[in-house]
Amino acid sequence: MNDRRPIGVGMLGYRFMGKAHSYAFRALAHLIPPPPLLPRLVALAGRDSAAVAAAAAAYGWERSVSDWRDLVADPEVELFDNGGPNDVHAEPTIAAAEAGKHVVCEKPLGRSAEEAYEIWRRVEQTGVVHMCAFNYRFLPAVRLARTLIEDGALGEIRHFRGRYLQEWGEDPRPTWRFRREQAGSGALGDIGSHVIDLARYLVGEIRSVSALTATFVAGHDVDDAFAAAVELGTGAVGTLEASRLAPGRKNSLAWEVNGTSGSLAFDLEHLNELRLSEGGGGFRTILVTEPEHPFTEWWWPPGHVLAWEHTFVHELEHLIGAIAGRNEVGPHGATFEDGYRAASVCDAVLASAESGARVELEYRGLDEDRRSREP
Amino acid sequence: MNDRRPIGVGMLGYRFMGKAHSYAFRALAHLIPPPPLLPRLVALAGRDSAAVAAAAAAYGWERSVSDWRDLVADPEVELFDNGGPNDVHAEPTIAAAEAGKHVVCEKPLGRSAEEAYEIWRRVEQTGVVHMCAFNYRFLPAVRLARTLIEDGALGEIRHFRGRYLQEWGEDPRPTWRFRREQAGSGALGDIGSHVIDLARYLVGEIRSVSALTATFVAGHDVDDAFAAAVELGTGAVGTLEASRLAPGRKNSLAWEVNGTSGSLAFDLEHLNELRLSEGGGGFRTILVTEPEHPFTEWWWPPGHVLAWEHTFVHELEHLIGAIAGRNEVGPHGATFEDGYRAASVCDAVLASAESGARVELEYRGLDEDRRSREP
Amino acid sequence: MNDRRPIGVGMLGYRFMGKAHSYAFRALAHLIPPPPLLPRLVALAGRDSAAVAAAAAAYGWERSVSDWRDLVADPEVELFDNGGPNDVHAEPTIAAAEAGKHVVCEKPLGRSAEEAYEIWRRVEQTGVVHMCAFNYRFLPAVRLARTLIEDGALGEIRHFRGRYLQEWGEDPRPTWRFRREQAGSGALGDIGSHVIDLARYLVGEIRSVSALTATFVAGHDVDDAFAAAVELGTGAVGTLEASRLAPGRKNSLAWEVNGTSGSLAFDLEHLNELRLSEGGGGFRTILVTEPEHPFTEWWWPPGHVLAWEHTFVHELEHLIGAIAGRNEVGPHGATFEDGYRAASVCDAVLASAESGARVELEYRGLDEDRRSREP
Amino acid sequence: MNDRRPIGVGMLGYRFMGKAHSYAFRALAHLIPPPPLLPRLVALAGRDSAAVAAAAAAYGWERSVSDWRDLVADPEVELFDNGGPNDVHAEPTIAAAEAGKHVVCEKPLGRSAEEAYEIWRRVEQTGVVHMCAFNYRFLPAVRLARTLIEDGALGEIRHFRGRYLQEWGEDPRPTWRFRREQAGSGALGDIGSHVIDLARYLVGEIRSVSALTATFVAGHDVDDAFAAAVELGTGAVGTLEASRLAPGRKNSLAWEVNGTSGSLAFDLEHLNELRLSEGGGGFRTILVTEPEHPFTEWWWPPGHVLAWEHTFVHELEHLIGAIAGRNEVGPHGATFEDGYRAASVCDAVLASAESGARVELEYRGLDEDRRSREP
Repeated sequence: MNDRRPIGVGMLGYRFMGKAHSYAFRALAHLIPPPPLLPRLVALAGRDSAAVAAAAAAYGWERSVSDWRDLVADPEVELFDNGGPNDVHAEPTIAAAEAGKHVVCEKPLGRSAEEAYEIWRRVEQTGVVHMCAFNYRFLPAVRLARTLIEDGALGEIRHFRGRYLQEWGEDPRPTWRFRREQAGSGALGDIGSHVIDLARYLVGEIRSVSALTATFVAGHDVDDAFAAAVELGTGAVGTLEASRLAPGRKNSLAWEVNGTSGSLAFDLEHLNELRLSEGGGGFRTILVTEPEHPFTEWWWPPGHVLAWEHTFVHELEHLIGAIAGRNEVGPHGATFEDGYRAASVCDAVLASAESGARVELEYRGLDEDRRSREP
Repeated sequence: MNDRRPIGVGMLGYRFMGKAHSYAFRALAHLIPPPPLLPRLVALAGRDSAAVAAAAAAYGWERSVSDWRDLVADPEVELFDNGGPNDVHAEPTIAAAEAGKHVVCEKPLGRSAEEAYEIWRRVEQTGVVHMCAFNYRFLPAVRLARTLIEDGALGEIRHFRGRYLQEWGEDPRPTWRFRREQAGSGALGDIGSHVIDLARYLVGEIRSVSALTATFVAGHDVDDAFAAAVELGTGAVGTLEASRLAPGRKNSLAWEVNGTSGSLAFDLEHLNELRLSEGGGGFRTILVTEPEHPFTEWWWPPGHVLAWEHTFVHELEHLIGAIAGRNEVGPHGATFEDGYRAASVCDAVLASAESGARVELEYRGLDEDRRSREP
Repeated sequence: MNDRRPIGVGMLGYRFMGKAHSYAFRALAHLIPPPPLLPRLVALAGRDSAAVAAAAAAYGWERSVSDWRDLVADPEVELFDNGGPNDVHAEPTIAAAEAGKHVVCEKPLGRSAEEAYEIWRRVEQTGVVHMCAFNYRFLPAVRLARTLIEDGALGEIRHFRGRYLQEWGEDPRPTWRFRREQAGSGALGDIGSHVIDLARYLVGEIRSVSALTATFVAGHDVDDAFAAAVELGTGAVGTLEASRLAPGRKNSLAWEVNGTSGSLAFDLEHLNELRLSEGGGGFRTILVTEPEHPFTEWWWPPGHVLAWEHTFVHELEHLIGAIAGRNEVGPHGATFEDGYRAASVCDAVLASAESGARVELEYRGLDEDRRSREP
Repeated sequence: MNDRRPIGVGMLGYRFMGKAHSYAFRALAHLIPPPPLLPRLVALAGRDSAAVAAAAAAYGWERSVSDWRDLVADPEVELFDNGGPNDVHAEPTIAAAEAGKHVVCEKPLGRSAEEAYEIWRRVEQTGVVHMCAFNYRFLPAVRLARTLIEDGALGEIRHFRGRYLQEWGEDPRPTWRFRREQAGSGALGDIGSHVIDLARYLVGEIRSVSALTATFVAGHDVDDAFAAAVELGTGAVGTLEASRLAPGRKNSLAWEVNGTSGSLAFDLEHLNELRLSEGGGGFRTILVTEPEHPFTEWWWPPGHVLAWEHTFVHELEHLIGAIAGRNEVGPHGATFEDGYRAASVCDAVLASAESGARVELEYRGLDEDRRSREP
């Protein structure tokens, strides 16, 4: 353990995601097997000097800074973790990559597909490792679902229906999450992007959306909810939905996949469980803590359940593995291309809601982009 | 009990719905309190003489006939119950009503909005009592939900999401349910119409649909599934969905309503339960068998749960009450106007799926129709 | 159907069980396949002439009487159904059998093992068919559980834990259920006897009990609850429990069986479901409504769930089958010997609770009894 | 944070509990609010030098030793954490306390009531802080349950039923958990002691047990399961049970409390949830992650669920609070007296199982003990 090469981390953002990522980096250093590189918490950045200093002390960072540019300029920072609000995703992330640092950025990658594309394009050019922090891919139950689907346990996929419901969105405080300028969109980008990413990860690319959005709360200039009928994968149809105005739903990211020979169902409020129906039988509840299940070798005996925060441990271990050359970021981690594609779907939802027309998705690649900009 | 006036019933259809309705009519005669009129099972009609005769004997009908016109011509038949396939809804129902018989017709009322409208218009002109058999309105949990919503327990409604999933639709037998000519549509009209009707009953009129349909099984010329984003009620948004290709889902008509101050959730596979969240608390499971709950005075002590078939007992009791002048068919029963409106939503789903455009619903009334046909 | 030979039924008791049995007898006449004999509801008996007359009219009985002896004397009564309070189980049931009528008696068979033994002994001597109405054996999920256990799906059985919880027992009305003279015991005989019977039916004979009882409510002179550690079957251990003072538990008869290779779990509040764990996997919820499941051929398509009252339909069909010589009452129906054995366990619970000592069960047979009474 | 006084920790045991406690100590150092003292991981002890050295490196301990006496002798160790097998609870714990170190010891405190009493007596005499690691008291749902019961939400308590089921006990490897000499008892002390402790914590002292034990697996010389009917609190009755041979039950510590006005139910497999029935209504699922819930201020927003391992964070924070004088160990933490009392109940279970007689519990105090040993 002690002989692992350290990797210096600089992080922007010290509140919710700042705490969660800090916790995960520290946990990583004390797991068996150890990660390929040992995270060293070099510096934490935030605009409120006193608050960020307190957080840095509490979470065990070596120092704090009040300008993210100090992280970018810091030679000890090898990995830049962007956990700030959506409007500070693009510039710091691109700057860090261009300074040669590996980058991980919270979702949604950009406030628009255009912005996300630009982040991807600019970062990809630098050659650093990049990951968009769609952490729910790293739930053991989600990884197991992906494996089962890939292995054909469900046959050919016909349906995906997913929705992410929370209840706190009545909040009248004018935080950045309710402002279009800072957030890009509302429930759509904040939590809907997770549903969109999981649909892509589990079933395949989203091909069209027929969508609605709604803003219910006075003072919000973003959507409080969206609903969409979608085509995805190789011919499946289904629904995607998100709302922060669903009383009783604390953190319910629930999805279901139906194939020709089986189904899977999941709810984040029971995140250790995956429900599987095979061959026409009823659903079996798999408590995803058995030795053969993804990620559980690092943890406890069967039935000793994991928490929400473990997603970050798994996710950041995966990132560090990619930096160390042990694995690729994709397909299990979301690359910035995945971040761009999720943002494209968000844009398509907004466009369809606005126009009333179904929107067919067209995803840009970097090559065509290079071509298109050639003289 | 014995002094109740009898009402002669003639029924078309002797298979699934024939058995269920027969069972309910007989149960009705032996409940406390007794129904306003005592059903007398006069005659059962079906094309296969031997089969319908056997069914009539088994279910306790006085006689059987092989032509529904015999029911229409029979002076002892006062109530005509149409439980036949969709393509024999219109002509027999209209003929029975024009012969002065009260009519109840299985859902969907017509194979198209146009056909349903015509049934409604022609029957309404005769002055008889009419009901479309959306039996799930008569689940105790659904009636309780309606009452709670009307009483403001959820506040202002923001979301409805409902889906009806079954798994048997891979069936390669070319039954009428898979043929457009006979069924009108597939999963949409067969089971989706129930979701549509419940959305209307619980939350209010559907105002627009942005929809997709899919046909997966070779040989089917109707949809196997549909998905839609909808606007409904006074500004709510949500999703509607149905599929007969969801392994593990035996008969899962599940819906959820979110309002400003609470939520309700239901699944037909647990039909005795209504889940209620109030004031930000978690969901409470109400076993809808308490003395103060709808319909339970007729049945058993608390916790002695009811079945799917009880919906028909409640529904037909309600119909007989309307015939006896004790109550109106609406709003708790579905009138033929409700049948027409559900069919309109089905048509809008098909149109939106075809065109890719959101379809705003416009419902016709009888008056405007009369006006429009005036010279 | 119409050519089935009728069997005249006389019933004592017109309230809860009276209604449930009446409903079942009528349903029986209208099922496919028809029962071997066609129940004819000849006469209903109860002490309150007006009330029993009203019930008879409502439930479709031909006549009512105010003395059960009239049923015994009635040549048209071929089957005597005793649904009265526990203190009128012995005398009328024995008298009916001795008059040559087949008999079914509600549980608990007697107020004590001694009384139950006497009923069994006297009735057995007459040669009529007898059944004790432990109706929960006739739940499709329970029958399926029995079949799975017999087929070895769980391996060797190690544990049974069952409890029947209700919440209405605070009731201060001095009904017969709270009086020792009439009821024999309290929660123990009323609902605990069901748990005891199902333990025997599923896992095998109860061999010892180490038990407690408690009376909490002033004015009750029977137990409000009991709890026992038991040995049963071929070496399994577990717990049995019943209480009518468990708020929130409406009608929760829940049991679990663990074997060397699997487990089963059930709760009456979800009576259509059986939960099965096989080979170390999580529990799978079987909705017991598939064509291959017990009893479902009589009813509806998969997922169209049954009710509490269907147990009586299945149970009385089974009884009529035994009368017609199509099947035996046991092992799927409870004979009066089963009724006696359940009463013996109830007595053992009371004795163990009183003495503080474990009580080993010893069940008497009729032969030894005959021997013991020989000169 | 950085100005907190450190407290040096020495720990015996580096496998399951060793990992869990290490993780918790490290997490403690990075929570807001910080603990009263900052854990410093001084030394880890285990007999296998290489293995303990590897574990110490992995989990971040400063050094490792192969003899627990080195921890006792180490002046930098102020808190001795005993996570070793049951047969090394007594001597090291007493020695550490007598060397002036505060002590925490895994459950069961001793292999018998006698041994546990001796540990308690000897440690209490030294005046150090002591805690027995019944970690499930520190589940947010359990703490909330305790508060609700104390506040009278359930009224007067009538029933407690609890069972701890796992499935791995078929394991043929002769580990210490299957040997009486090392473990004291089997499922009883290993997992049953948790049920016993929670019964005491939630409802009150256990007053009598009528119990059975069973050993099913060849080669085990301890119980594989126990079952007991118990009297507890101020007149409640119920059942306690544990088995490591319940297929499908991964880690199911489930309990239910019924009072005169409400009930609570819990299952460790859904450890973030507490189910509450109030006033005769159905059970409401409380996701115990709201700001007002116990311990959640340290963690994440509502619905971001916690894990099994968080119990140790809460437990050790509580212990450190007691060492710092901020709080007492009891009643929320288990003192060594609680450890002794749980061991007394375990002994009573074994005695009742052996003798067949109900065993009334009599708990010794230190004063009477002192008296009894006076000349």
